[in-house]
Amino acid sequence: MKTLEEIHDEIINGHLYYLRNVSIDNVIFGYHNKELKVLLQRPQGIHKWVLSGGYIKRTESIDEAAKRIARERTGLDDLYLTQFMAFGNPDRTTDPDIPTRLISKLVNIKDAKDFWMFDYFVSIGYYTLTEFELVKPNGEFNMEECQWWDIKKLPPLLFDHREILVAAFKAMRLHLYHYPIGYELLPHKFTLPEIHTLYETILGKKLDSRNFAKKLISTGIIKKLNERRNIGPHRSPFLYIFDKVKYDKALKNGMVLAI
Amino acid sequence: MKTLEEIHDEIINGHLYYLRNVSIDNVIFGYHNKELKVLLQRPQGIHKWVLSGGYIKRTESIDEAAKRIARERTGLDDLYLTQFMAFGNPDRTTDPDIPTRLISKLVNIKDAKDFWMFDYFVSIGYYTLTEFELVKPNGEFNMEECQWWDIKKLPPLLFDHREILVAAFKAMRLHLYHYPIGYELLPHKFTLPEIHTLYETILGKKLDSRNFAKKLISTGIIKKLNERRNIGPHRSPFLYIFDKVKYDKALKNGMVLAI
Repeated sequence: MKTLEEIHDEIINGHLYYLRNVSIDNVIFGYHNKELKVLLQRPQGIHKWVLSGGYIKRTESIDEAAKRIARERTGLDDLYLTQFMAFGNPDRTTDPDIPTRLISKLVNIKDAKDFWMFDYFVSIGYYTLTEFELVKPNGEFNMEECQWWDIKKLPPLLFDHREILVAAFKAMRLHLYHYPIGYELLPHKFTLPEIHTLYETILGKKLDSRNFAKKLISTGIIKKLNERRNIGPHRSPFLYIFDKVKYDKALKNGMVLAI
Repeated sequence: MKTLEEIHDEIINGHLYYLRNVSIDNVIFGYHNKELKVLLQRPQGIHKWVLSGGYIKRTESIDEAAKRIARERTGLDDLYLTQFMAFGNPDRTTDPDIPTRLISKLVNIKDAKDFWMFDYFVSIGYYTLTEFELVKPNGEFNMEECQWWDIKKLPPLLFDHREILVAAFKAMRLHLYHYPIGYELLPHKFTLPEIHTLYETILGKKLDSRNFAKKLISTGIIKKLNERRNIGPHRSPFLYIFDKVKYDKALKNGMVLAI
């Protein structure tokens, strides 16, 4: 937790520690048993929600900055973040009232709009997908709330954050066809119906289960075990695990999953 | 063409007109009849090549900046640019010698490294693919050469520009499965072998021609004409055109081309 002095110093002198005009926005998606959610925060005194954003330290890469910011919000250190798009136009965060209100309770600045913080920022968007039961949401110091929202029932979002969220969702769906997912979301040993449900939940559509299984197995990223799980009378599907070597290779080089 | 005074002013005062710490790099690919090339420039007195980069004006969006910079290099106003990735780490353009050498012939700056231009820049990468016979390469003012290079025979590149180029190429290949291409690259009326060759050239691999045709037609982006082209004895393939409405829709919303 930052002290009030540290916060005050960052607001006044932040351009000495952080890059100007470029920042990070993380879209943190959470999955658990057919539910897809997104982590949002609500600033004090504002009735719209925001993504988890932050500035880039002069000593770190943009990937490191995204990871640090995601860790601060979720408490998780091993999130796999994917950069999907940058957003930049002079009006993207222009809202004459809000920026000033966001900090005026913290520091006494006569004309806050002159400060580095309220300049034109290009934001680099990253997304991650995690098992949401593992996360302890932790809002920034100036946030009133930080919680998961169902992807189908989003609250109003501040600035262009809805556009960023929608673009992240679109990118995640597209990436499903080229990069493996599930390692952090499914049990170590899982059934074909479990991974099938994960893909259907993200894509928001039905997938033919035989074709899906055939195509997924043909990528080599999952391996069938000589072991079943009993889930009911006459129902004992085979268990599968990820082939971590092939999974990591596909994560790095991409693949074509023609589901 | 900028005057020497304008260039001098930009080097000294550019941070008043442009964003700090964030810039654009365009990877301009060119296609013509089975050949895939990339447009590169060579700075004066340097023996490595660079992409077409530039700064973002405070009054323009990042898309507008990318388009302006691409227009300056190619003379083409209607290039379709795709943003694919941002690159940022404190060392990405650090090379103690080069930045100073790049401008020391232009302005007399004692310690050029203190200037805004040599700060840590996050670069937003865009790529475009154009018919290279349409382009008149036009290097920046401080470039000695500006020319097309075969994608398989690249010269040494400065900074992290090879990494950016490789990432653009990888992104373009992946996008082939989800976004249409060809409208600017093929004749208005084209044959299946022509569009097949275009895809094979970019993917760098053979594609089964019957499956390719079937899958491409099923997306609806091309339409068969009741018209053939005579290309030799017993060879008169049917002609096709793009369905521009469906093409533009797929460009906007994406599609799945399971080739």
